[in-house]
Order: sequence, then structure tokens, then C-alpha cells
Amino acid sequence: MAAAKIAPSMLSSDFSNLATEAQRMLDCGADWLHMDIMCSHFVPNLTIGAPVIESLRKHTKAYLDCHLMVTNPLDYVEPFGKAGASGFTFHIEAARENWNELIQKIKAKGMKPGVSLKPGTPIEEVYPLVEGENHVDLVLVMTVEPGFGGQKFMPEMMDKVRKLRQKYPSLDIEASHSLFLGPIASFLCFLLPYDPNSVSNVINFVLAGGWRVRSINYRCSSISRSKLHCGRELGVWRS
Amino acid sequence: MAAAKIAPSMLSSDFSNLATEAQRMLDCGADWLHMDIMCSHFVPNLTIGAPVIESLRKHTKAYLDCHLMVTNPLDYVEPFGKAGASGFTFHIEAARENWNELIQKIKAKGMKPGVSLKPGTPIEEVYPLVEGENHVDLVLVMTVEPGFGGQKFMPEMMDKVRKLRQKYPSLDIEASHSLFLGPIASFLCFLLPYDPNSVSNVINFVLAGGWRVRSINYRCSSISRSKLHCGRELGVWRS
Repeated sequence: MAAAKIAPSMLSSDFSNLATEAQRMLDCGADWLHMDIMCSHFVPNLTIGAPVIESLRKHTKAYLDCHLMVTNPLDYVEPFGKAGASGFTFHIEAARENWNELIQKIKAKGMKPGVSLKPGTPIEEVYPLVEGENHVDLVLVMTVEPGFGGQKFMPEMMDKVRKLRQKYPSLDIEASHSLFLGPIASFLCFLLPYDPNSVSNVINFVLAGGWRVRSINYRCSSISRSKLHCGRELGVWRS
Repeated sequence: MAAAKIAPSMLSSDFSNLATEAQRMLDCGADWLHMDIMCSHFVPNLTIGAPVIESLRKHTKAYLDCHLMVTNPLDYVEPFGKAGASGFTFHIEAARENWNELIQKIKAKGMKPGVSLKPGTPIEEVYPLVEGENHVDLVLVMTVEPGFGGQKFMPEMMDKVRKLRQKYPSLDIEASHSLFLGPIASFLCFLLPYDPNSVSNVINFVLAGGWRVRSINYRCSSISRSKLHCGRELGVWRS
């Protein structure tokens, strides 16, 4: 069975030691590094921007999975491409008028386009972006209200994942703070809880792709021990 | 004579090693650390927010001189106070309607309030903020267009510094990317050029407070050698 993918959110890390934190995550078994970009307008928080990605890129070759919670994603394509972002996931709520142009420009800058949606946005809104000629490579289903770490997981959002999987068997589906279903449901990506050193996190739900995660108990420091392999550790198995 | 104050902008630093960079600046003789906060709406760039200040605060007791280039400064008071910011300098262009409330709240959170203004804003606009019952402790005169490091110094902005000094002999006046006049023109604060390792920077102007800076040649690594003392090194003297 395919190995799970893990993309810890660097929002959980010590921003004063980002290079070290990134390497720590990779040493612990992270496959991608998830970068939460917030501009304080799309969500009520301001985190990090392109200058931070540019600095981090000088220290790592890792896949930098950038999730842009911003109102004007088009303005970020140029600086994020230049900074060395790998993935550029924008929000449909901020790109209803220009997603086609946006996807084209993201690709032109050598990044992988992705689209995300808030809990209140119907999943049907992203279908055209998955089906278009210039389509996204990934859909990030928010299972929490974006803006801060440590938000409560909303299990009802898994209906969106289920619908997406049924409609697009090979689509990469990422679920913030919870899971990632890769091509043909072959891999998962668990994003870390807000405080990686806090008490363990328990998630209990059924995935759409046929994978079931009964319960997950992990801490940041234990990723290396608990590197997910479907059907093996941590109660992840094919239902 | 009083020593100059130096507050290098951390915008020039390696954001992936901020704790180390901060200590390096302090070891080199920096008095304050200047933190450029940009939300991509007030200026066309997004840099760092409260989570980064909060992380950095855990590593240093230094004065964190936060310059908020944001459209909604009131929303930042609570998170920046909590994060451990020392100074909270907002822009008058973003607070024309609520500066009085803003100053009160900044003080209530234990931070030093400051006001800044873009090159195109007349200096007279900040007078009420200096004179009010709840007044700012500092005026930051932008001598460059805010948004990015490495902008060209606009010497004509020194007229604003001159006017401020004549009107308020004991006001702290900070000038981004160039100089800082402290109480009674007693100290200067030179912010580092964008790339601290780049070729040296030359500034040539006359200060309003009676201090003259003929030419300044410095690199990041040489601050400790060139720690400014008015009337002594680096061509800084009383005219």
C-alpha cells in the first residue's frame, strides 16, 4: 500500500527558527511543508509572506505547500514564484472572477495550482476549476474556519471530501488539519495540530476514498515513529 | 554627548533564522530591533505578523520597535500586545478616524504608541497626535515609499524632520532607513539598508536638530565598530 503523505503546517512552529524547524519536520518524516499565508483581510490574522518563503527556500529543497488565505491572490503569484514556492493554493472565495487567469499564471511561474474553500462554501464551486483546461492540481478542503491554528475540526466537512473523491478519483485532495487524499486515494497528509508540543490530537472519521482513520494520536516529535503507512500504524486502514 | 541609537530593520535579515539574526544585530550594537509589518493592502507586500513577533519575543528581551504598515491598525493592538511588541507605530493614513482610541488602546496594552506618515502626507497631519492628552511617544517620518526594503532615500523628507524638531524639541523622531532623533536631538537611529551584506550605503543630509551627518559608510557586520556617537565617528557632528 502507498505511504501516507504528511505536511505539517509551519504555523505550528517557532517562527524565529524556521530553517531548523523545517529540517526538524523533514527529519521527523514530513513529506511537504505546509505554509499558512494570511493577510489579515481574508482572515483575521497576519502570518508570513513571500520574504519568509524566500528566506526558507535558501535552507531547504522541500516542497513548500503554500496556502494563501488572502483577498488578492493574483498579486502574490509573481512574488511567491520568485520566492521559490512549490504549490500555490488560493481560495475560491477570493478568486471567483479571475481563477482561470490565476491558474495560468501560477503554472507559468512553475508552481502547482491548488484551490481551497472555506467551510461555508459549497464544494460544487470548485468543480469548474478541477474540470477546466487549465485545472488545479489539488483541492484543499478546509475542515476548520481558516485564520488561526488550533481550530475545532468539523467532521461534516468530510462530506465534501467524499463528493470530490466520487467525482474525481485521481484528484489530490488535501484537508487542512486533518488529512490528504492523493492520487486514487493512495496517500494521506495529516497536518499537525496547532501546538506540536501540546497534548495529543484525536481524529475520528471515515475518508471518502475507502480509507478509514479510526483514531490518531500524535505529537510533533513522534512523527518519525508514527510515519503513516496506510493499513499499518495509527489505526489507518482500508475499510 | 549622547550616543546614537541604532534600530536595524529585521526586514533585511534571514527570516528563517530570526532569533540568531536578532542576536547578531544586538551583538553588533543595535539598540532596538525594527520590525516591518506589512499586510499587502496598505502597501503591496506581506511580511510578518504577530505570530512571528510572539516567537521572537521568546528569544530576546530587546525592544521590538514594530512599524505597522496595515490598513486596520486597531485590529492589531490586542495580538501585538499579547505577542510582546514594545513599540506600536501605526500610520496616520490608516487611522484618521480613530487615532485617539488607538493610542489609548496601545498604551493600555503596555506598548509605546508611535505614528508614521508616508512621503506624500503633510507633516501637519500628525501634530494633533503629538499634542493630544493621549499622545504618541514617537513620530516615524518615512524617507522612502513604504512597502519594500532598498527604496531610494528621499532627502526632501528631512524638511518634515526639521519642522517636527523645531515644534517639538523633545519628541522622539525616527526616520525609516536613515536616522532617528531622540529626545532633544540627542540620539540617532540608523536603520540598516535592505541588504546588510551589500555594498555600503552613503547618506548625506543635514538634520533638523543641529546634528549633521556628512556621510555614512556602514555594513551590518561593522556596526559594532561604527556604533555612532554624535560628534565622533562616521562624520556625525553638531553643525
